[in-house]
Amino acid sequence: MKLVTFVGGERASASVGCVGDDDVTVHDLSGVVGQRTLLDVIDEWEHLEPAIAAASDLPVVTAPRLLAPITRPRRNLFAVGKNYREHVREFGRSGYDSPDRSEDLPIAPVVFSKATTAVIGPYDDIDAHSEVTSELDYEAELAVIVGRGGKAIPRERAFEHVWGYTIVNDVTARDLQRDHKQWLLGKSLDTFAPMGPWAVTADQVGDPAKLVVSSTVNEEPRQHAAIADLIFDIPELIRVISAGITLLPGDIIATGTPAGVGIGFHPPRFLVPGDVVECAVTGLGTLRNTVRRTAS
Amino acid sequence: MKLVTFVGGERASASVGCVGDDDVTVHDLSGVVGQRTLLDVIDEWEHLEPAIAAASDLPVVTAPRLLAPITRPRRNLFAVGKNYREHVREFGRSGYDSPDRSEDLPIAPVVFSKATTAVIGPYDDIDAHSEVTSELDYEAELAVIVGRGGKAIPRERAFEHVWGYTIVNDVTARDLQRDHKQWLLGKSLDTFAPMGPWAVTADQVGDPAKLVVSSTVNEEPRQHAAIADLIFDIPELIRVISAGITLLPGDIIATGTPAGVGIGFHPPRFLVPGDVVECAVTGLGTLRNTVRRTAS
Repeated sequence: MKLVTFVGGERASASVGCVGDDDVTVHDLSGVVGQRTLLDVIDEWEHLEPAIAAASDLPVVTAPRLLAPITRPRRNLFAVGKNYREHVREFGRSGYDSPDRSEDLPIAPVVFSKATTAVIGPYDDIDAHSEVTSELDYEAELAVIVGRGGKAIPRERAFEHVWGYTIVNDVTARDLQRDHKQWLLGKSLDTFAPMGPWAVTADQVGDPAKLVVSSTVNEEPRQHAAIADLIFDIPELIRVISAGITLLPGDIIATGTPAGVGIGFHPPRFLVPGDVVECAVTGLGTLRNTVRRTAS
Repeated sequence: MKLVTFVGGERASASVGCVGDDDVTVHDLSGVVGQRTLLDVIDEWEHLEPAIAAASDLPVVTAPRLLAPITRPRRNLFAVGKNYREHVREFGRSGYDSPDRSEDLPIAPVVFSKATTAVIGPYDDIDAHSEVTSELDYEAELAVIVGRGGKAIPRERAFEHVWGYTIVNDVTARDLQRDHKQWLLGKSLDTFAPMGPWAVTADQVGDPAKLVVSSTVNEEPRQHAAIADLIFDIPELIRVISAGITLLPGDIIATGTPAGVGIGFHPPRFLVPGDVVECAVTGLGTLRNTVRRTAS
């Protein structure tokens, strides 16, 4: 199933829907899930799934506007840096991984977080934040949505805790990322986490290693890599994060970005107002976000 | 006022209370705030404060157990590293700030986050997590509790957004902090954020620069510093974080720890099961947490 959070149609507030086989039509699931958010639905998935799967004759939503599937995450997104070989090299060469500047592969996953207030919808604008950064960059990523929570989850049971998948553009202010050493601020400015367009259940995705993540800027191809190329794969990320941290239903883990980001070019190609960034993953749809000048 | 979240007395679930002038007696505020959490109370502070301040003849709670004042934060805690000069030096010398190993003062605040699931009460046990770390350390810190949310807050208006203060022990697994480069995992293991014992309103605290933060391990003094010694003071932290990130009511900002942590010693003095760590800040009470062996 492809689930969405939308506004529009007869619903005044955000509601949960599902996307039809044409990948366009949105069907209203409120009749099945009531006023629940998609986060609530994931919390109660075992109980709700049969009814959602069996639902038929769902009303079609006229002119829906999609929000991030999980509009208000329960806590910061987990995110992973330096998780594709070629990206580790471009990042090391760029000098932005100060003070490291290393092209060595990480010995352990580089895990940081993105603040909840960074989350925006799949077609919303990215704020250029020109008052605080002049080095705006994009990072297309496959994101895991945790279903059943847990701790000390072994690799071989990791997929039992995956509810599904979505796309996150891990938008980054490279100057802040470098100057503050820890990446939280550079990764967390408002609008820096476009998410969606859909939350796709794990059964529909199958083996995530077969997916491809890609991005374009103004229709020019920039990133393209197989999820199979992850240095630390999804079971390993879940094992490592959950080793000492209890994962919660609805937790989001952005798995890292491949080579081809703006700082990978010489000179760097940062985003500027008016640029259109698209991030896609096989079967999960496409994020399409325009960079807008900061409102003064 | 000194507000608390407690269980006990006639209340089956966690309730909001206030602490009497003896710093011990807990009065039940449920008659005034109903079923609200302390986070809810902070959200509605302007509306609720007069009634809370005017409350009298509040029932005394028998044998209260204090929880963290904000038991379930809305998102990860903001936390600041390397924010006292002598601690920057001890951290640089220790070799744990790999690959930096620098004793240079930071040019910008080093801001990271601690996961919500790390939060425990002021007298709860810290899990040794011996299955993932052998280098457990303590960090006593003054924490700011945000009241009115906001973005692009200038220094001179920063204190208008401070609801109050509490204490956080920024417990850290030094080996994870070093090996994962980004600090999220090493700072976020379950039980790694003892908080409390009280949430003290800003008007009661006055000028936070006059406070002193200190810690002991098994009653041996370890840390002792004036908040005035912060490299980046509270107005600067609020200015920098809010420059691009919308702060929310109830957000917690742990302001950094002074010299005297375990890795500051030669050889390092890590915590082991049975150790008792106390963290105190003038007028904010004392956290007292025992390190317990991980349940097998």
